[in-house]
Amino acid sequence: MGELTHTDHNGKASMVDVTDKESSERTAIACGKITMTAEAFKALKENALKKGDALSTARIAGIMGAKKTAELIPLCHPLMLTKISVDLELDEKSNSVLCRCSTKLKGRTGVEMEALTGVNIALLTIYDMCKALDKNMVISDIHLEEKKGGKSGDHYYKKGTD
Amino acid sequence: MGELTHTDHNGKASMVDVTDKESSERTAIACGKITMTAEAFKALKENALKKGDALSTARIAGIMGAKKTAELIPLCHPLMLTKISVDLELDEKSNSVLCRCSTKLKGRTGVEMEALTGVNIALLTIYDMCKALDKNMVISDIHLEEKKGGKSGDHYYKKGTD
Amino acid sequence: MGELTHTDHNGKASMVDVTDKESSERTAIACGKITMTAEAFKALKENALKKGDALSTARIAGIMGAKKTAELIPLCHPLMLTKISVDLELDEKSNSVLCRCSTKLKGRTGVEMEALTGVNIALLTIYDMCKALDKNMVISDIHLEEKKGGKSGDHYYKKGTD
Amino acid sequence: MGELTHTDHNGKASMVDVTDKESSERTAIACGKITMTAEAFKALKENALKKGDALSTARIAGIMGAKKTAELIPLCHPLMLTKISVDLELDEKSNSVLCRCSTKLKGRTGVEMEALTGVNIALLTIYDMCKALDKNMVISDIHLEEKKGGKSGDHYYKKGTD
Amino acid sequence: MGELTHTDHNGKASMVDVTDKESSERTAIACGKITMTAEAFKALKENALKKGDALSTARIAGIMGAKKTAELIPLCHPLMLTKISVDLELDEKSNSVLCRCSTKLKGRTGVEMEALTGVNIALLTIYDMCKALDKNMVISDIHLEEKKGGKSGDHYYKKGTD
Amino acid sequence: MGELTHTDHNGKASMVDVTDKESSERTAIACGKITMTAEAFKALKENALKKGDALSTARIAGIMGAKKTAELIPLCHPLMLTKISVDLELDEKSNSVLCRCSTKLKGRTGVEMEALTGVNIALLTIYDMCKALDKNMVISDIHLEEKKGGKSGDHYYKKGTD
Repeated sequence: MGELTHTDHNGKASMVDVTDKESSERTAIACGKITMTAEAFKALKENALKKGDALSTARIAGIMGAKKTAELIPLCHPLMLTKISVDLELDEKSNSVLCRCSTKLKGRTGVEMEALTGVNIALLTIYDMCKALDKNMVISDIHLEEKKGGKSGDHYYKKGTD
Repeated sequence: MGELTHTDHNGKASMVDVTDKESSERTAIACGKITMTAEAFKALKENALKKGDALSTARIAGIMGAKKTAELIPLCHPLMLTKISVDLELDEKSNSVLCRCSTKLKGRTGVEMEALTGVNIALLTIYDMCKALDKNMVISDIHLEEKKGGKSGDHYYKKGTD
Repeated sequence: MGELTHTDHNGKASMVDVTDKESSERTAIACGKITMTAEAFKALKENALKKGDALSTARIAGIMGAKKTAELIPLCHPLMLTKISVDLELDEKSNSVLCRCSTKLKGRTGVEMEALTGVNIALLTIYDMCKALDKNMVISDIHLEEKKGGKSGDHYYKKGTD
Repeated sequence: MGELTHTDHNGKASMVDVTDKESSERTAIACGKITMTAEAFKALKENALKKGDALSTARIAGIMGAKKTAELIPLCHPLMLTKISVDLELDEKSNSVLCRCSTKLKGRTGVEMEALTGVNIALLTIYDMCKALDKNMVISDIHLEEKKGGKSGDHYYKKGTD
Repeated sequence: MGELTHTDHNGKASMVDVTDKESSERTAIACGKITMTAEAFKALKENALKKGDALSTARIAGIMGAKKTAELIPLCHPLMLTKISVDLELDEKSNSVLCRCSTKLKGRTGVEMEALTGVNIALLTIYDMCKALDKNMVISDIHLEEKKGGKSGDHYYKKGTD
Repeated sequence: MGELTHTDHNGKASMVDVTDKESSERTAIACGKITMTAEAFKALKENALKKGDALSTARIAGIMGAKKTAELIPLCHPLMLTKISVDLELDEKSNSVLCRCSTKLKGRTGVEMEALTGVNIALLTIYDMCKALDKNMVISDIHLEEKKGGKSGDHYYKKGTD
């Protein structure tokens, strides 16, 4: 039976000991989206069309947020990321912005949480910029798309499996 | 037609000027959830049953994350929150953890982003603690449940409105 | 019977709601010390005599640490300190450095934790600078010397009372 | 005669150059305690009995605080900790909470300051949660219990030596 | 004769006590520039022409940097900025980027340091993005252009006065 | 023709991928200065003469600022600095303070930005301490004096080259 790895046998929080794990190249990709009204989406798109700062603000926030992961998530190890990128795509059909964050490092433990944090902060930044136009936006579908390297091997997201 | 409030007429990012807004009591409640496999959910529940630290770790992370909002979201104003709480509920039917973050202050601008950030960080913390058991978890349905105070008045979440 | 104010009736961590507390001038003074070998103390004193940076480094660290209190102590409110000072005194008789941190603000909740955090960080900084000479140093006697303002009134430290 | 390692020959603050030190496994354990009135201690114990968040809040704060060491202590090097744990024990005889923080890494310089910072922040967090019940609490006996690895070799705390 | 306000009569660092200063609206504008080779300037301009992220990255960094002032400058008070904006202008004649940061708040002490910090961080960000093309760039002419509000009254920059 | 390395082919901000760069010893030295009125300079000098904290405060701020580089400059990689020092020199002839920051590490990417950030924050700290005496101070001539190690080889500053 599975057990939480971040708590000891008494259930107390503790950082996993990764001292003896091998240092190797590890990458992760996380995704997520924010859905809004047609009006808010249109304003965002117009800013993007006239090449305003809305999407780049979210991109920068995502990159900087990923770097802050160990400060935000109590049991995450500090990591030396060697690459972070955040992509945003406007999806006209669903009035959504799709976000994708890729992270990379050579180290003893993985970069999934960094990619996920990057997605969350980028989407929250879009929320912030659009909230005067739409107070019913929803951030959803945040998941780990892909993870490579490390002892547990590669992993690709399988939706709705249990 | 609606326009983004966080960019100027050239589309450049800029903090909204709230100097002349009246200081008043403002509250916000944001919600969201994380869904996982039955196995991961069971491990989390067992930790909760033996009163381990898993849920309290997420609660603390959410509270501390809410305090970091202005550091994470580029155009958010620094705010003096007077109250933050994070509630987590295990939903057996859906193998989900539901999160709810309430924030409060007396100030010139609202606390929605702080409540939303609290929810995101709390859910990411649960993700981190369960990720060894389930790599297909999904964080979803993050939205503003309720907002009171401020010039734009009270607001209650309306699902799927457009 | 006394109850913890930072946990709700279920014992869950939560920030105390200070929204309705009156804003008033509040001050606090915290103290503490670090005791070391004669050799380490002499090195520190010599640096102080030739007006080196050792004590000013600790002073600056204490001031900056006090400003970080709400980031370090999970249930502390963010506060707008209007004054912080850190004093350090070399006590020859006991080979100790005595530290005293004063904090001040006009606000809804007190500044005790800020003064105490300032003392802790200043003393840790001295520890860091002397640790190559003495690995048996002890930081002790950290307490709230005095607190003024606020609903609970003024308070002066009473040693060993129970 | 011993000299401060963190100041140059003019006494000016400077980070020790560790570029050429060998990377090796290093561990440290620091301890400390907080003593309070019987009433405050009882409230804390009751929260612990009903498995409230008081102790886990302090544990998490200690872990997160240890990760912030290089940000708090001016001349500390940024380090990639591979393990942090914080243990808290209620000592009924002395109405005290005993804290113990263990840190570990593979790196060029030690983790004593990280363990000590973890202890300080955990104890300050308990102070914060109990301060409404007792304003005369004392944090004391903070010291390095044990240190392993690195050029200067292993060290075990010797009380009161000079 | 003038004296430093941030040190006491012994010359020791201390935060100025602003508890009793009146809260009023205060604004500041700081300016500065970075000068580079024609080649680096051209690359930056091309990025701007195709509306890339280079300038918006610097703008966001400046805004976020201004919010971090009290964390960076030891004796600065934490402030609740109500407005920050950063403008960047490409000056073809001098192969320079001119930066201007405006800050605003209602509070007890001024916002000069915040505006100056915003300028510094925005210019450092441009440096970072162009440094692969030019290693001889110079950041210069950083000064306070204008300051309004507060007891000491309005001030406009006078170049080269002594 | 040169191209920005921190933006992709669409001009979007992205962290340079340094995963495959070789780890090697890298050093950087950055310089800059602040010029003030004779009166402000005299006050600073008197503080220095009586060995007050003014210069050590700036030195400490510079060292701590250099450690914060990856948090301030959006596309900078987190780095494990092994050495930082900040030197300040009072130049009587020009009523200026000259600042020089040296940084060092073994790693995959350079430490120029860290040295430059250290200089900026140290000079801003002097600005802060002198601003009550002089509102027309200018920070200028911030540049990379020297850089060693890394694939692009050693570099020494060449003034005014284009």
